Amino acid sequence: MILRIDRLPVDLPRPDSPNANAASAVQELLGGKFGEMSTLMNYTYQSFNFRNKTQLRPFYDLLCNIAAEEHSHIELVSAAINLLLTGTTKRADRRVATGSALNAAPLESAVDMRNHYHFIASGQAALPVDSMGNPWSGANVFSSGNLKLDLLHNFFLECGARANKIRVYEMVDDPTARAAVGFLLVRGGVHIVAYAKALEKLTGVDVGKLLPIPDVSNQKFPEAKIHEDKGLHRVLFQFSPSDYTRAGEIWNGPHPEDGQELEFTPDIPEGFPWPDLDEEPQLSSPGVDPDMIKYFASKLGDDARDEQIARERTAKEGPKSQSPASTKKKRS
Amino acid sequence: MILRIDRLPVDLPRPDSPNANAASAVQELLGGKFGEMSTLMNYTYQSFNFRNKTQLRPFYDLLCNIAAEEHSHIELVSAAINLLLTGTTKRADRRVATGSALNAAPLESAVDMRNHYHFIASGQAALPVDSMGNPWSGANVFSSGNLKLDLLHNFFLECGARANKIRVYEMVDDPTARAAVGFLLVRGGVHIVAYAKALEKLTGVDVGKLLPIPDVSNQKFPEAKIHEDKGLHRVLFQFSPSDYTRAGEIWNGPHPEDGQELEFTPDIPEGFPWPDLDEEPQLSSPGVDPDMIKYFASKLGDDARDEQIARERTAKEGPKSQSPASTKKKRS
Amino acid sequence: MILRIDRLPVDLPRPDSPNANAASAVQELLGGKFGEMSTLMNYTYQSFNFRNKTQLRPFYDLLCNIAAEEHSHIELVSAAINLLLTGTTKRADRRVATGSALNAAPLESAVDMRNHYHFIASGQAALPVDSMGNPWSGANVFSSGNLKLDLLHNFFLECGARANKIRVYEMVDDPTARAAVGFLLVRGGVHIVAYAKALEKLTGVDVGKLLPIPDVSNQKFPEAKIHEDKGLHRVLFQFSPSDYTRAGEIWNGPHPEDGQELEFTPDIPEGFPWPDLDEEPQLSSPGVDPDMIKYFASKLGDDARDEQIARERTAKEGPKSQSPASTKKKRS
Amino acid sequence: MILRIDRLPVDLPRPDSPNANAASAVQELLGGKFGEMSTLMNYTYQSFNFRNKTQLRPFYDLLCNIAAEEHSHIELVSAAINLLLTGTTKRADRRVATGSALNAAPLESAVDMRNHYHFIASGQAALPVDSMGNPWSGANVFSSGNLKLDLLHNFFLECGARANKIRVYEMVDDPTARAAVGFLLVRGGVHIVAYAKALEKLTGVDVGKLLPIPDVSNQKFPEAKIHEDKGLHRVLFQFSPSDYTRAGEIWNGPHPEDGQELEFTPDIPEGFPWPDLDEEPQLSSPGVDPDMIKYFASKLGDDARDEQIARERTAKEGPKSQSPASTKKKRS
Amino acid sequence: MILRIDRLPVDLPRPDSPNANAASAVQELLGGKFGEMSTLMNYTYQSFNFRNKTQLRPFYDLLCNIAAEEHSHIELVSAAINLLLTGTTKRADRRVATGSALNAAPLESAVDMRNHYHFIASGQAALPVDSMGNPWSGANVFSSGNLKLDLLHNFFLECGARANKIRVYEMVDDPTARAAVGFLLVRGGVHIVAYAKALEKLTGVDVGKLLPIPDVSNQKFPEAKIHEDKGLHRVLFQFSPSDYTRAGEIWNGPHPEDGQELEFTPDIPEGFPWPDLDEEPQLSSPGVDPDMIKYFASKLGDDARDEQIARERTAKEGPKSQSPASTKKKRS
Amino acid sequence: MILRIDRLPVDLPRPDSPNANAASAVQELLGGKFGEMSTLMNYTYQSFNFRNKTQLRPFYDLLCNIAAEEHSHIELVSAAINLLLTGTTKRADRRVATGSALNAAPLESAVDMRNHYHFIASGQAALPVDSMGNPWSGANVFSSGNLKLDLLHNFFLECGARANKIRVYEMVDDPTARAAVGFLLVRGGVHIVAYAKALEKLTGVDVGKLLPIPDVSNQKFPEAKIHEDKGLHRVLFQFSPSDYTRAGEIWNGPHPEDGQELEFTPDIPEGFPWPDLDEEPQLSSPGVDPDMIKYFASKLGDDARDEQIARERTAKEGPKSQSPASTKKKRS
Repeated sequence: MILRIDRLPVDLPRPDSPNANAASAVQELLGGKFGEMSTLMNYTYQSFNFRNKTQLRPFYDLLCNIAAEEHSHIELVSAAINLLLTGTTKRADRRVATGSALNAAPLESAVDMRNHYHFIASGQAALPVDSMGNPWSGANVFSSGNLKLDLLHNFFLECGARANKIRVYEMVDDPTARAAVGFLLVRGGVHIVAYAKALEKLTGVDVGKLLPIPDVSNQKFPEAKIHEDKGLHRVLFQFSPSDYTRAGEIWNGPHPEDGQELEFTPDIPEGFPWPDLDEEPQLSSPGVDPDMIKYFASKLGDDARDEQIARERTAKEGPKSQSPASTKKKRS
Repeated sequence: MILRIDRLPVDLPRPDSPNANAASAVQELLGGKFGEMSTLMNYTYQSFNFRNKTQLRPFYDLLCNIAAEEHSHIELVSAAINLLLTGTTKRADRRVATGSALNAAPLESAVDMRNHYHFIASGQAALPVDSMGNPWSGANVFSSGNLKLDLLHNFFLECGARANKIRVYEMVDDPTARAAVGFLLVRGGVHIVAYAKALEKLTGVDVGKLLPIPDVSNQKFPEAKIHEDKGLHRVLFQFSPSDYTRAGEIWNGPHPEDGQELEFTPDIPEGFPWPDLDEEPQLSSPGVDPDMIKYFASKLGDDARDEQIARERTAKEGPKSQSPASTKKKRS
Repeated sequence: MILRIDRLPVDLPRPDSPNANAASAVQELLGGKFGEMSTLMNYTYQSFNFRNKTQLRPFYDLLCNIAAEEHSHIELVSAAINLLLTGTTKRADRRVATGSALNAAPLESAVDMRNHYHFIASGQAALPVDSMGNPWSGANVFSSGNLKLDLLHNFFLECGARANKIRVYEMVDDPTARAAVGFLLVRGGVHIVAYAKALEKLTGVDVGKLLPIPDVSNQKFPEAKIHEDKGLHRVLFQFSPSDYTRAGEIWNGPHPEDGQELEFTPDIPEGFPWPDLDEEPQLSSPGVDPDMIKYFASKLGDDARDEQIARERTAKEGPKSQSPASTKKKRS
Repeated sequence: MILRIDRLPVDLPRPDSPNANAASAVQELLGGKFGEMSTLMNYTYQSFNFRNKTQLRPFYDLLCNIAAEEHSHIELVSAAINLLLTGTTKRADRRVATGSALNAAPLESAVDMRNHYHFIASGQAALPVDSMGNPWSGANVFSSGNLKLDLLHNFFLECGARANKIRVYEMVDDPTARAAVGFLLVRGGVHIVAYAKALEKLTGVDVGKLLPIPDVSNQKFPEAKIHEDKGLHRVLFQFSPSDYTRAGEIWNGPHPEDGQELEFTPDIPEGFPWPDLDEEPQLSSPGVDPDMIKYFASKLGDDARDEQIARERTAKEGPKSQSPASTKKKRS
Repeated sequence: MILRIDRLPVDLPRPDSPNANAASAVQELLGGKFGEMSTLMNYTYQSFNFRNKTQLRPFYDLLCNIAAEEHSHIELVSAAINLLLTGTTKRADRRVATGSALNAAPLESAVDMRNHYHFIASGQAALPVDSMGNPWSGANVFSSGNLKLDLLHNFFLECGARANKIRVYEMVDDPTARAAVGFLLVRGGVHIVAYAKALEKLTGVDVGKLLPIPDVSNQKFPEAKIHEDKGLHRVLFQFSPSDYTRAGEIWNGPHPEDGQELEFTPDIPEGFPWPDLDEEPQLSSPGVDPDMIKYFASKLGDDARDEQIARERTAKEGPKSQSPASTKKKRS
Repeated sequence: MILRIDRLPVDLPRPDSPNANAASAVQELLGGKFGEMSTLMNYTYQSFNFRNKTQLRPFYDLLCNIAAEEHSHIELVSAAINLLLTGTTKRADRRVATGSALNAAPLESAVDMRNHYHFIASGQAALPVDSMGNPWSGANVFSSGNLKLDLLHNFFLECGARANKIRVYEMVDDPTARAAVGFLLVRGGVHIVAYAKALEKLTGVDVGKLLPIPDVSNQKFPEAKIHEDKGLHRVLFQFSPSDYTRAGEIWNGPHPEDGQELEFTPDIPEGFPWPDLDEEPQLSSPGVDPDMIKYFASKLGDDARDEQIARERTAKEGPKSQSPASTKKKRS
């Protein structure tokens, strides 16, 4: 079971200017083979499938804490994509359009953009697809049940994910995207080290000495450095109110890159509010009548208000009063 | 962000006898188009992509609470599959085999089973694939950004999911599977009604009167009935420590099927412990050396113990002492 | 535009005994790479995309007549699959079950069948998937726009389809399946020759001399022979009330295998009634209340009857009378 | 069985200027999850799989008429795509090129276009793929066999399709595309109402009151309005010479949006001629020798003409006269 | 460029008894995510994409030699599958069947087998699909261009492949399959160590100390042990007449598991003849007329013989002599 | 088994200017349905699956020689793609960047390019995907086991491949791409004729008279003509040191297009060196430390040098000296 918290793990600035193709590139970090859907689902399924977890508890606990953190990463990447997409086309509400406005094509610029799904399947928003629009696939989940092999996979997966993050960073210099990617480099870096540590505990091999992969330090990415300078790369969070408490038996000792002491903490980050996404009326998103919006914005469920709004709706819906539905009502 | 809790939402009995093909059928409820991966991811992405959520808060909160609950459903279905698969093949540990035991084929019976991935890709455990082994796909996520359309989709999706659950129930009479499916019928039923209520608030149409779809009451499934008799079909849980509090503005009034009053509660169910899965040595799952198991079962991170276990490992690994690695150590 | 006729092109006997795995094999002829979905869609798209059809009319007309006939082939294969599946599991109506019948698992035998989609996704009925449950894909459509290449493709496609038909024939000796496959061998044979003739007209090469591919005559399949003995392999039908009339400029001369004169006819076969499929209540298919069935079986739309049925429904639906919907009605 | 008619359901103007990326967007309406391939195939398979159709005839007849109409919709969208693509690259016939023309790259502009399949796999023409080039999949077909669930699905599918159509309309202001989409909004609207009516007959719920979804009236789209002003949104056609006659038992009463009386008619629309597509010699489409074109343009099958054309072909094909083929002829 | 040699790398015994479901399981080692198609194509593409190979030659050479060896592994697995499939159904030649034999269904037993493609798409032979019939995908190729990351991937891939091989070994005790898998465990083991050594050279980390993964020695598999006892696990072959000569700069020092000295040799194994596969006439495979078989078995290209065979063919093909083709010949 | 040779079959010029979208188009010739992956794998699997190859040896030998040649074609197309991609983005090495260079986005231009995988999944290099980024699929392999049908397939496949090559040629006028495509037109042309000849031997039909498909002679493509003028279209190579020697029994007689005598030769072309690909540091490709590069460029395996480089590495890696790994070393 999970409890969900309406906060993002990092403070996301608004983009300098919306950029649909940049959003399309960032999709790789969400729905790509090495995207956050993959890290989330790999660790989640491995934790479900863990055999003899009673006796191998520290490994299980490590896995579960990381799996839980990955949920905040699909949130973060989605939020970044959504900010990059919001406002990329012209706003226009056809419901109130008249005259020549009826001939307008407010989504016209989308025709030449890379990812048409953003404008047709979604309302300029994130989807679990990669940078080429190919959907994320359950075939990306590796869960062999062999602990050493699963850990090796995870170590590789996180290194591959890091390479993808770096490349997307090099593609997109928008501050929203870079804030997201910088943070992910740090937290993904924690996961890389965590799996290295787990393999070390299991085998005695100095796996951490392989790092960093690729050979560029997080210190070289300003949006990652600000977090590392505060020590965020040393901390593993217990993403649970009371469970998965033994991850610290693996997450300890010095960090393989800078030698700082690792720390396992029962608290989770306080987080930041999600940005509210503006309406995109040209996409009918959310497409709710302004009067109804006002109604829902205040408290629902009050019978008097409900009745009033129903009355208003009926008033507006003149033609529907002759509908077969209402006819039937009279009959029954 | 999420917090994960190491509990299952329902108490799962052990199977009468493991049954790999039954597990294969149950996979449809996990990785099928109408499986729990789909419900989880649809609502999760719709919540990420919600526009003007400030003013449409009750809808957003409803969606988020349901999305969060769906996580416990991928857990539950996975746990049921894992129990059905555990013990389906002969146990044998090749590491300690000698003589004719080296010619054995402990997984032989798996050759004729329906889902080979259970025995090759996983260690007799769940994967995000459907009943035919086709992987779950991100293409199953619908997130148009239009609120009415997304709610209609969700209502349909849950009805489709209900039909699948009923059919799997009719296929498998194992108590583990039926305990899981019975519970899911009830909680999925809550979600159906929740989306019906949301559509009703938005449009005034009595969508709930379409229920049940298909036209068989949950009361006809003994493993669902026991939960409904306790009122579990009337309760929506706030799956969050402090957020998503306004779902009750939609989840209220009488239940469309039995007229009982709906209830939104800030508490979540206490839950039940996950079953621990036995080792499957013939699959090297988890494949950890028994001595190491013992070591990890007690507290790690104690330097003295660490050193001792390292010594023992070295002692066992005779040949490795001439490995290039150790040679290199001497050189450096 | 098309007009649809509620008839099958051949008289399908009922199966000796239903056989779900045989149905699974026959699916290859529907949704496989060389199945009827492929032939239908290849010719359909090629006809849409035909350039300079005014001057190349005989080729266009040939293509369109064959495309139209292929629709009757997806019908035929689906009907055969449906007959093979109907009755494969135990019939039981949970709506009226009581006592120990509630613990029954009428679909139990389906657990070991090859295609679970038949029992979960469909109501024991055909789907556009192949013999392994993989869905038919638009990637199976070849439409290069180069006439010679498209014709060569079609010639190959039909030969590949013939090989598949023969193999399914050798797998399944059920009379329903064989009646369908035998007929398809004959009509598919017509299409093979048609594309051979078209290539001959275009290039002068005796493509028909390559036939039969594989090297077994249709005369060796009793269920095909009966149709050939009536000359059905010599006739191309104009599947249109008034269009595509010039196909006979290509479909003429002797048949390459037996030298009989080819014939293009403006009439289409009279056809045979579709078998009616029995209800499968254990799958809630169609799942309509018996009283409603009776109601719909007679003429709808009569206001008096409508009112009566509505009254009866209301009477049955006791609890719904306190539903929010009905409450709302009172308010409005 | 079907009869095909060489007419389009609406009169398509030529595009202002061809636009390959607009064509790429329109592909979503053909091969997308909510495209016309999906509506066509969903209703087609549901009709094949209908259980107890004898007694539930009005529903079956409704489904069959709509399925048949959908064929004209894949035609219409394909025709629009083809008009948008025709002429998008430079015309050049390499067969007759000499000198520096041999170094030309007439398809050069296609390199930067969104959908390369249009230029490599097809001859600038439609394919059953979506706006991102992903092929249509049989997994898009829903056919549960449960009547209420299938109708609910269809209602949702049509609403989703409507949302897609509106968005493509907002992207593309080309008159060809808009003529096609405007017409589809009207006829798709008929199908939405038809499934709403069917659900109403089955359950008594005023499903039609949910409309329109999204909340923009067809009246706001000039190319749809012209058809609605003529009443086209009130008419269901019997797309069959003599079958499926009872659909009017469901399709009756007032239209849920404007209250006008619905009408079921045994006639189908007269239709309009398909636009003839110009040759694209740079794609070898159709790639037939001009002399042969002339030959085929007149009546084939006349032996004298056949012989003459064969003679001419031989004359042209000098080198082939020493081919092994002709050698063999001399031998035999 | 490659040169192909008509030899298998190991001597494959005939199966005790053909077993179609065992063949289906072995397919995972061919077309699965961790099958030989994946290892072959990963290293092949990485070698194509290698940047600065001049200066990093030893790594490039290692990769190329291993890539080349993998070709012999797709051969080996295919050969094993083919032997397991040959003879699984009844042999019968419909071309010469008469009377009641025409009603036979020689492929009947295939209906209940796991992989229908083996009997419909292929002639009881291998296809690039996995154990569930899902096709191998290019998405399985990882080629980041970052050397350390690619090597880490390859190390993981080979460990994953080893786990799959062990599990298939535990499933199938047929001598053909086990001879193939035993050999692959040894040679795959060489590749694991090779990538470990390459990572060690690049980073100084004792990656080899992680082995074996899973933790079962090859010595425990009799069919692998016989090869290791001859030292086959210590030898890397230069699969090139004169190139890729510097792989020995990485492949050297002691083996991480048994400390024996590694050896790079310019010779390749002599190999063993491929088993000849019997005809399967019930599948028309190869479906060539016995007289023609005789003809091709002797030397072709002799004009006199060619003429004679042509004469014989013509004699047999009576009806074809009235075909339009021959008519045309007379005309020309 | 194969031997690999580090040579390309044709001399590839460097591009005039790198062009990522042209590379994206050329991908169709690598990973498309009709790309070189398809030709390679079709013939390879058909050769593995050949039944009665002893008696049908000339056909088998033909297939194997062509299959082997296709490997050089995936090399060639990959090399062309890699040359087109190398240098398409700004070069920058973040490892040594300081100050404002840390804010740079060297891959920025890639955001608007067609194939993001080239910049995220690979290091500006080829992948087995098509022009839309869809991965090559094993479903593209046809291997029916029926010789005539397989040959017909191959004949069609090569014609389809030829059409694709011509279209890519018309799209891209870069000299690298055209040199590759021109050569492939000639060698693919050989394969077309080879399968035509094989069908002729088997059936007596003048299949070669269908050529060329499409109807444009290779003589019209300057980069193909230069090879044909040297007779390269008449020669089939024995791509084996000593096997597959009887292909000449099929490959003989006059070429169907120009009547020149065909020739089968035991020698293979000498080939040309592969272009070395420059480093792309902004992609960390290959990402190896310059000092290490120098080290690897000279001979490895020299113990003294190894020790020195290890010392240097340790010196650089200051922080790692406090890593747990090194701590452990001290303990052991």
